[in-house]
Amino acid sequence: MIASRQERLFSAISDSSFGALVLNPGPTLTYATGLDFHLMERPVVAIVVPGKPIVLVLPELEVSRAETTPFEVKLFPYGEKLSTWEKAFSNACRFAAIDGLRVGVEPRWIRFLELSFLQNATTHTVFESAETLIDELRLRKDKTEMKLTLKAVKIAEAALTATVPSIRVGVTEKEIASTLMGNLLAAGADAELPFSPIVAVGPNSADPHAVPGQSKVGKGDVVLIDWGARHEGYVADLTRMFAVGEPSDTVRNIVEIVHKANRAGRASAGPGVHASAVDKATRSVIENAGYGDRFIHRTGHGIGLEVHESPYLRDDNDFPLDAGMTFTIEPGIYLNGEAGARIEDDMFITADGAESFSTLPREIQILPL
Amino acid sequence: MIASRQERLFSAISDSSFGALVLNPGPTLTYATGLDFHLMERPVVAIVVPGKPIVLVLPELEVSRAETTPFEVKLFPYGEKLSTWEKAFSNACRFAAIDGLRVGVEPRWIRFLELSFLQNATTHTVFESAETLIDELRLRKDKTEMKLTLKAVKIAEAALTATVPSIRVGVTEKEIASTLMGNLLAAGADAELPFSPIVAVGPNSADPHAVPGQSKVGKGDVVLIDWGARHEGYVADLTRMFAVGEPSDTVRNIVEIVHKANRAGRASAGPGVHASAVDKATRSVIENAGYGDRFIHRTGHGIGLEVHESPYLRDDNDFPLDAGMTFTIEPGIYLNGEAGARIEDDMFITADGAESFSTLPREIQILPL
Repeated sequence: MIASRQERLFSAISDSSFGALVLNPGPTLTYATGLDFHLMERPVVAIVVPGKPIVLVLPELEVSRAETTPFEVKLFPYGEKLSTWEKAFSNACRFAAIDGLRVGVEPRWIRFLELSFLQNATTHTVFESAETLIDELRLRKDKTEMKLTLKAVKIAEAALTATVPSIRVGVTEKEIASTLMGNLLAAGADAELPFSPIVAVGPNSADPHAVPGQSKVGKGDVVLIDWGARHEGYVADLTRMFAVGEPSDTVRNIVEIVHKANRAGRASAGPGVHASAVDKATRSVIENAGYGDRFIHRTGHGIGLEVHESPYLRDDNDFPLDAGMTFTIEPGIYLNGEAGARIEDDMFITADGAESFSTLPREIQILPL
Repeated sequence: MIASRQERLFSAISDSSFGALVLNPGPTLTYATGLDFHLMERPVVAIVVPGKPIVLVLPELEVSRAETTPFEVKLFPYGEKLSTWEKAFSNACRFAAIDGLRVGVEPRWIRFLELSFLQNATTHTVFESAETLIDELRLRKDKTEMKLTLKAVKIAEAALTATVPSIRVGVTEKEIASTLMGNLLAAGADAELPFSPIVAVGPNSADPHAVPGQSKVGKGDVVLIDWGARHEGYVADLTRMFAVGEPSDTVRNIVEIVHKANRAGRASAGPGVHASAVDKATRSVIENAGYGDRFIHRTGHGIGLEVHESPYLRDDNDFPLDAGMTFTIEPGIYLNGEAGARIEDDMFITADGAESFSTLPREIQILPL
């Protein structure tokens, strides 16, 4: 698997205007090498030149991990003395012969830290975003990736189901989030969750990125839960709506509209359909209901080794969807100071349409008082 | 608190060769503004110019969060259309008047993504590492920060104590790690742990950054646990050693040496003592025992809002420790293919010495079969 991915990466670089690619700890390095380093204060970079061994600059204490790779790699380890860092970078860049080349990087992953060492180690080398090349590499998931994503979704769904009985009057957002996280791990999620669950009660649900706090569930309160799981690296990202006792008419109404929008979005997706068309499908439902200006974000984003990746379902993105692409559909309505609603599913494009990995009921779930 | 931190930040910038600072989501932005954004695909930057309102470029859907700041802030929000991003950055840079200035950035946090937008929005602006300035700002913890760190350590210790009974023959590393994470949340840890716990059984303990896997605890196996907690942002980072049944003589021996080294390190620390001297104190114990080349990392690192921050306890760092600084002491011995040992405490410098936040027994704990 790694071998065929590296072959694809090599030919993508050869076919591009880049002479080399620099990857640092993050999903693409893992995708292309199987290596999983943390992004920390000790810089790690892989220099990828087609047809040559992958060059790896890394701390000595990570060397044992890099020695187990099933492909040829040339290591440039550095010690705990800062003076050894610069030397490792300069030897690595010389070995990879990237001087004077255009070198592609991942704009959301490479930092000033790594860039400075690379720039000091080279002359006339230009570092530019290789986002399109890398997106293209990872956009179409293979069978294994599909299976891992489905498993992540099943883990997430099982964990939420196990958490629902603890959503009662008087419980805080934070308590529900902790219970959910425990259930995610118990259901087999990777230790590194893709993100901390959002549990937002009442008016807090009007903030799309609310952080669980000390707010308690009250009678009739809406509860928005946006949660995920990771399974062998691949992520699930879902949102469902609850109320404890009868919710207000407004809450019932916005959840129903968002549900309709979610359904329209799912029905619209398929191979050849533009990402913008799916956005339009969900957005027009919400606009027609008079809440267009309260749907304040895009319809969805790709999922895979990252919780947000290509394709992005935005109204200015005419990117055509294709079989094997995986992404969320998550329309929402946010009424500041009152309530918010979002219903989010994880989708994949098939040969002739789109299907949802996620199957939990999408209606608002009214829980007993 | 935020007001006095901003005052200190403003005068640090005024006293430096920087005309402004750019912060992006991460600990220093939180420290200086109280704002907590995720580092995602939508860039967020704060431009800090002494004596002026803080300039914030951010997605529209985060605006409600930024409006609650207790200080003057000038927002430049952008929408979901990519075309609005560049405009927000260029308006913000013009308003902050950073053209032609030296602007400090955080090398471990700012990415190619933010740098590209900033560079496109300015001419003749030079972006340089402001690491020293920022370290100096956050190095000495105040009473509140000390209390939060102590609480984080207490949470971490309580969670480990609750986990110990589940360390039995036949249990996997991953199962122990999951139990520990559940216990951390139950003990009141913030949802975002500082790092996923390391649980390393037998020879796996020889990898300082081992990832919990399917290895099962066997009779007599050593179990290394390196775990942490976050409490209102502040972190604990600890390591303790266990064995289920009688461990080998080698294991007993290296744990004892590391314990002695840990004690020597703790005794050596104090105000005015160089970071390198503490490293030397632990290292010489291990060297004298003949394992100098198997202690393959520095003695410790600062802790605070980050799990690794200044001061770094390395043999080439002559930085003088000072009252209020908080850091780990964590000597280790790693015998590839056989076993590793590390004992890690969280320390703070007092007026005349150093004390440990952590108090769990440091000897290897022999658990019943």
